[in-house]
This record gives sequence, structure tokens and C-alpha cells, in this order.
Amino acid sequence: MGLYLSELARQTGARLEGDDCLIEGIAEISAAQSGDIAFISNPKYLEHLAGTSASALIIKPEFLDDCPVPALITANPRLAYAKVANLLYPARKRESGISSNAIISATAKVGNSSSVAAGVVIYDNVVIGSNAQIGANCVIEEDVIIGENTRISPNVTVGYGSRIGDGCIIHSGVVLGADGFGFVKEGDSYLKIPQIGNVHIGNDVEIGANTTIDRGALENTVIGHGVKLDNQIQIAHGVTIGDNTVISAACAIAGSTHIGRGCLIGGLVGIVEHLEITDNVMITGRTMVTHSITEPGSYSSSTPMDTTANWRKNSARFRRLDELAKRVTKLEKTNKSAD
Amino acid sequence: MGLYLSELARQTGARLEGDDCLIEGIAEISAAQSGDIAFISNPKYLEHLAGTSASALIIKPEFLDDCPVPALITANPRLAYAKVANLLYPARKRESGISSNAIISATAKVGNSSSVAAGVVIYDNVVIGSNAQIGANCVIEEDVIIGENTRISPNVTVGYGSRIGDGCIIHSGVVLGADGFGFVKEGDSYLKIPQIGNVHIGNDVEIGANTTIDRGALENTVIGHGVKLDNQIQIAHGVTIGDNTVISAACAIAGSTHIGRGCLIGGLVGIVEHLEITDNVMITGRTMVTHSITEPGSYSSSTPMDTTANWRKNSARFRRLDELAKRVTKLEKTNKSAD
Amino acid sequence: MGLYLSELARQTGARLEGDDCLIEGIAEISAAQSGDIAFISNPKYLEHLAGTSASALIIKPEFLDDCPVPALITANPRLAYAKVANLLYPARKRESGISSNAIISATAKVGNSSSVAAGVVIYDNVVIGSNAQIGANCVIEEDVIIGENTRISPNVTVGYGSRIGDGCIIHSGVVLGADGFGFVKEGDSYLKIPQIGNVHIGNDVEIGANTTIDRGALENTVIGHGVKLDNQIQIAHGVTIGDNTVISAACAIAGSTHIGRGCLIGGLVGIVEHLEITDNVMITGRTMVTHSITEPGSYSSSTPMDTTANWRKNSARFRRLDELAKRVTKLEKTNKSAD
Repeated sequence: MGLYLSELARQTGARLEGDDCLIEGIAEISAAQSGDIAFISNPKYLEHLAGTSASALIIKPEFLDDCPVPALITANPRLAYAKVANLLYPARKRESGISSNAIISATAKVGNSSSVAAGVVIYDNVVIGSNAQIGANCVIEEDVIIGENTRISPNVTVGYGSRIGDGCIIHSGVVLGADGFGFVKEGDSYLKIPQIGNVHIGNDVEIGANTTIDRGALENTVIGHGVKLDNQIQIAHGVTIGDNTVISAACAIAGSTHIGRGCLIGGLVGIVEHLEITDNVMITGRTMVTHSITEPGSYSSSTPMDTTANWRKNSARFRRLDELAKRVTKLEKTNKSAD
Repeated sequence: MGLYLSELARQTGARLEGDDCLIEGIAEISAAQSGDIAFISNPKYLEHLAGTSASALIIKPEFLDDCPVPALITANPRLAYAKVANLLYPARKRESGISSNAIISATAKVGNSSSVAAGVVIYDNVVIGSNAQIGANCVIEEDVIIGENTRISPNVTVGYGSRIGDGCIIHSGVVLGADGFGFVKEGDSYLKIPQIGNVHIGNDVEIGANTTIDRGALENTVIGHGVKLDNQIQIAHGVTIGDNTVISAACAIAGSTHIGRGCLIGGLVGIVEHLEITDNVMITGRTMVTHSITEPGSYSSSTPMDTTANWRKNSARFRRLDELAKRVTKLEKTNKSAD
Repeated sequence: MGLYLSELARQTGARLEGDDCLIEGIAEISAAQSGDIAFISNPKYLEHLAGTSASALIIKPEFLDDCPVPALITANPRLAYAKVANLLYPARKRESGISSNAIISATAKVGNSSSVAAGVVIYDNVVIGSNAQIGANCVIEEDVIIGENTRISPNVTVGYGSRIGDGCIIHSGVVLGADGFGFVKEGDSYLKIPQIGNVHIGNDVEIGANTTIDRGALENTVIGHGVKLDNQIQIAHGVTIGDNTVISAACAIAGSTHIGRGCLIGGLVGIVEHLEITDNVMITGRTMVTHSITEPGSYSSSTPMDTTANWRKNSARFRRLDELAKRVTKLEKTNKSAD
């Protein structure tokens, strides 16, 4: 029911300025009420400083003089805010124990203090670490290993042989370990290639709702430690993603592409198959990545939004852009010969 | 078992011309058989008028002279058709009652005449209004409120604290209230920001299969009354969508973006975070919206399809478009100085 | 526990060169160990030939002289490899029988040797063929027909009236037969149009995880024989897809569009409504298809990736492309009149 500001200072490493007080919640600075703590990172919110109703603020040292309430002083208010939020709002945890309405193979092992909800189906030889949570109506197929402190929301499917590390968070509707998409043409039709790899997920990975990660064709599909995947992302067979890479919603990454560490990939990005993306690459939203990226930096594609009327005119010209360029070259030659 | 044309006229407000007859089904005009009613809205289908096998048609007054069968006359045949279809094909309704194979908390309340199917898991303090339907294997977490006459298809997950209005339709695989995607960098890795907002859905909202709507970080994610969302849409934390806005499949809307009322958003549209889209905006398919839109109207991006061979040539020129423009400017200067 | 190379030759129609040996697994040539068979289709992997640890290789006749191990010789190593893989790794099959934890209507019929897992809910009048598998927590609504040898992974929803052929594979999270997205404006709000068609899936169709196929508005949504759909594809109401068409992940196909046979559609492709795409069309990744395609061939759109800095400059010019083209035309006229 709240923590004292001094305690929050101690636990976040921020410096307390002003009187101690009880903090019961967090809020945006414009909406904060008594009992709340808010933070200012972006100077554009400084206008709210004087009139704030928050009981305390998290700010940079340079804003202290203008701060009318007790404050936590830190060089990185957003990080301190996240730490405070984690202290005030610890992750929800279901009571440990196995629901009598879960169906669990006799050969599966569930660790101490773990929770398995109603409707869960767990197959043979599954091993679940301690303090894990398996949400209602999840299905965990054979030979899956799930680490300790990992939380799986309801209605998740984990295919046979998948490994999930410690401290992961997997949201509802996720499908891990469906078959990769591999076929060979035989006459007019297609013959399925068995997908015999697995899915390996590192520690501290978060996977958003309805994201799908396919099992490998031969090799495994591997998600590194600390990777954060938003909702509705598609990761194809044999993809590897390096540690601490962050991928926003609705991206699709095709087979056997390898993405480095510490990358930041915007929403709706597509990456074609068999590419190498080096470490620390940023890719802006909706980019279509069709070549490997060997240098860190920021990459983009797509075209800018316009009114439909303007866009139509410009877009029509795009279909003759090559011709236009040739006409310009011709003009240049004419001009030159006229010199 | 069918309704008389006179009854359909009465209930839709259309004018009956010709003899009354029993109507048992609806069909496209080219496929309609005896007993069916069809409609013509688009003049290009008028060619089917003379030879139709339908027992009746829904048409505009100006087509009456050419109509060989009884007709419902109305200025808006498509709307009358929808009303007729709703009369002939009322929404499917499961028998009311709670399945003995549903797992329901003792503190949850389910309204009169509601139906809760097998495999459903309902947590503490959930309140479900009267005449609602919860499909098989749905999971409804703590403190959710679901309005009356709302129908939820199988395999839906509703996260704790979500509110769903009256008369909503939620299709299978939908995930409401998964955590928003919020992290702060701490060294090389990312610290999760607790997502403490909820999801609030208005009345008469339809949500398509496998669409995901995340809970807010601080504020709530809010979907207005009458909003229609197609399949596989991703709505991030803190998004708000005004009443009666319609969004087609596979769109992704990033965090804290606010969309007005009465907007029409095509399929595969992306909208980046923290934007304001005013009321009555139309956005065509595949547009990437990177700036706020303050004026109603139609907006677009993307480039036109072509043969791959042509597209390659034009697309290569796009990478030097800035240079091309500078070359044109130089030519203009040369020409001017030559005058 | 493995098959002899001579047996693999016999069953694939390849020619055995060298000594017979026991093959226990398949692997990529660079990772293959003793007991493995690998294949080389792409000449760029020939460098691995001399030093391979594989017990046997599948190669074209022209590489035989350089092959240090026993080999299966064939004109199409990739196809032979797929056949070998299917022999060594037959599809996983659950024990036949109906789980005591499945909830099955008394009017449903399940064929011989079929398997229905725990948590499955099957409604009235469903008919499931012999040797089929229904994964845990699937929901099969009324009047669905599922063919023999069809395998459905966990957490799939099959809406009422759907028909699925023989030998299909349907991955987790798939939703078949949700309502199509059809509304008519009535004042400021939208009236739902009942969706009275069904979903019909042919034989030998594979449908990837979290893909959605809506029921038709009036007509059925029809997926032909041998169609392969990757993950997270959206197929709207009334779409038809011809036999042996292959569609990669994250595509969205809008209502009433008809796609021919033998098409290859890359990832993230969008196709707008009411189009006709003829047979044997290839569409490259991320293309937005806005017009019907009447000629076989390859089609594309989108723009190339660049560094964000370069892209910004070029992209800004795109908004004035029409003006640029007019300026070039003016220059051409000036030049001509100067002649």
C-alpha cells in the first residue's frame, strides 16, 4: 500500500530532495494526484511542473530549482521511474499450485512454487522450473523445458522440444514451435519438408500477444537473452536474434536470417530470408530489408504519407522514374554539347 | 423459415412493389434462386435484372420499370439488404446456461440468460451481463466487466481489469489486455515498465479474429462505441479510437496515438506512436502514417505495383531521387543563364 | 532408428553410388556428422564437399567425381532430400483415441484411429474422418466436416459449417470461419451484414500458426487443394485461392479477391478486394496489389532500403515527384524551341 519516497530513493539510487512522504501510485504528470509520483524526462512537460498535484517528482538535477514538491534527483528519470513502477506495482503472481483442472502427464515435472492454471494441458517429459506460472488453457507439448520465474499467459501453445529460459514473459496467443514453412515443388504440387529443429528462447525474453516463432527446419530457431518482442511478430524457421534486441509489433522475419545484438527494429518491418544483420542496427518502421546490413546505423525504406490526391500524382510518376532519369541525362548531354 | 416480403418491407421501411411472397434466403443476384431476395446497388449488375431467378429484389426507384419480379424500393438498397439479412439470419445464439465444464470463480457473476461454454476459465470478481455468450476455452481474468448481449467466440483471452461494453462481438483468438510494450534501457539490457492501465471497449464494438489490444502503460487503452476492427489488428498501449471508426485487417497502431471518430482506415496501415488523427479521416491501404493528421480527408502512401522488371529499374532510381532533383535544378539554372 | 542408403535410394528414385550405410539423420552439410545425410543443391556449398563428415550426400551427377562419401545421385537433390527427410522423420502422431477430458457432442462422429486431445470441445453434428488428430484445447463448432489424415494443432478454432479436406495440417492459433468484415453505414454508425457463407478447405492444405480465414458473406471462402499458407496470413470473406498456390507469412488478402493456381506470393503482400489474379503469378514480398493481374509473371512494389539519412532526402523528393517530372518536361520544351 505504498512506499516512502526515501525508500524509493534508496532502491533506485536517486537522491531525495525535500521531505519524505508516502507514495502510493505513479501517473503522468498532467494527471497525477496526491499520493502519486510522476517523472519528467522530456523538457516539453516542464510546463506542468509548477502546478503539479503529484506528491513527488522524478527529475534531472537541473530542474530542481523549479520543482515545487519533494523530488528524486537522477540523471535518468525514465529509468528511475521504471524502477519505482516495478517497486510499486510488482508483477502479478498467481497462487502457487497445480489446478485440479489441469491435465498433466505423469512424466512432467513442475518446480516448487509454480502455478499451473485450469485447462492447461502438459505432455510427457515437460520440465517447468520453480516459481513459474502457466496460464489457463495453455498447451505445453512433449519435452519442453521452461525456466524458473517464467510467466506464460493464458492460451499459449508451446510446441514439442521448445526451451524457454528463466524470467521470461510470454503473452497470450503466442505459438512457439509450429512447423517452419518449407516445401519442395514436385510436379505441380509441393512436398512438405519435415521441420526437425526446435525453438530455443534465452532468459529474460518477453514475447507479445499472438507472436509466432517457428521451429527450425534443421537447425534451431534461437532467441537470445533479453530480447523483447512485441505483439503479432512472425519469426520464421532458423532465425537467430542476438541478445537485447528489441522488435516492435507486426514485423515478419523470414527464414534463416540472423539478427545481431542490441538492434532496435520498428513496427511492420519485413526482413527477407538468409540475411545477416549486424549488431546495433536500427531499422525504422515499415522498412523492407532485402539486403544484409554489415554496418551499425539506421536504415529505412517506404515513402511518405500525403493527401491521396497528391500521392496519386506522385505515385503515377514513380512508374516512369527510370524514364524520367534518362530524360534528365539526355537533357544534360544536350546542354553540354550546346556549351 | 422465411419471412413475407410485406413483412420485410415493413421492417426495413422500404416500399413493396408487386405481389407479396415468402422470402427464405438472400443471395447475390447472379446466384439467386426461387425463394431468395437479392439487391442491386451497383448499376453494373443491372444486366442481371431481366433474367434473375430471385423471387424479389431490393432496388432503387429508378430501376423499378425494368424489374421483372416483386421489389422492395429504397434509396439505399445496400442498407435495406443488410436489414433483411439480419431479419432472415438472426445472430446464432447458444443455449443459455453455464457449462459444467467451465471453471468459474465463486466471486464471479454471470447475468441471466447468458451462456458460458465448456472449457471457459473465469477468475475472481468478473461480472458478465445478461444475455452474453462466452465461447469455449475463453479465459477471462480478474475484475473484468462484460456488458449484456456481448458475444465472445472461442479461445479469446480477456486480461484482468478489462471492460467490454454491451452488444459487442469478439472473435476467436483475440487478446485484450496483454501488457503494452514498454521498456527502459539499463546498460545493455532493458527494464520492463509495468503496464498498469487497462483496456476499455465501448458498446457495439466488433473485434476481428486474432486482433490484439494491449493494456495501457499508465492511462487506459480506449476503444469507442461502434468501432469495428477487422482481423489481426494490433492496438498498442494507450491508444484511443473514437466512436464509429472502422479499421481493416492487419493494421498496427503504435502507443499513445489518438484516432478520431468516424475514420475509415484501410488494411495494412501503420500509424506511429503519439500521433493525433482527427475525425473523419480516410487512410488508404498500406499507408504508413508518420505525422498527425489535423484535417479530414483521404491520405495515402506506398508505391504502385508493376512488373518486377520495371519495378527494379524504377526502384533503383528512387535511391538517387535527391540527386536527380538536384540535376534538374542545375539544368534549370543553366537554361536560365542561357536566356 | 535409421534407414539404409540403399533403401533411401529405392524410395526416392535416386541412384546409389558407393557403399551402402545406415543413415540416422539429416543435417546441413556444414554441420553433418557421422550417420547423417546432407544435400547440395546450391553450388556455393560445394566447398564443404571435400571435408564433409556426413556419411552420405545427395548430389547432382556432375558433382559425383568430387564426392568423398557414398551418394544419392539425382537431378533434383532438394526434392530427394525432402523425400529422405520424410522417411527418416515421419510426421508425429498422437495415440489414437478420445481423451476423457475432451467435451464432445453426442451427435458428433469421430473416425477410426483418430485422436482427440484433452480440452477439445466439439459441437453438434461435427464429422471427423479416420486417422485425424485434433490438438488439445481446440474448439470445433457445429456442422464442421474434417477429412481423414488431417492434423490440427492445439488451440485452433474452427467455426460452424467449415469443411476441411483430407491430409491437411493446421497449426496452432488458426481461426477458420470467423465472421467476414461487412458493414453498411446507417447514420453515423455501422450495421453488421450477417456473414452466411462458410469456409471450404481442400485436401493437402497447410495453414500456418495464427492465420485467419473468414467465412464468406454470401458465397463461401474457398482454399484449393495443395495450398500452403504460412503464419499470420489474413484471408477475408469470399476469397478463393486456386490449387497449389503458396503464400508466405503476414499477407492480407481482402474480400472477394480470386487468386489463381500455382501462384507464389511473398511475405507481407497486401491484395485489395474484388481483384482477379490469374494462374502462375509471382508476387514479391511487401507488394501492394491494387489491380487485377491477367498475365502470368512476377510483380512488385515498395521501395529499396537505404540508410535513414539518404532515405530521408530521397523520400522528401518523392512528395514532389510530379512537379519534378513537369519541370523536366518544361526543360525539354525549352531545349527543343532553342534548337
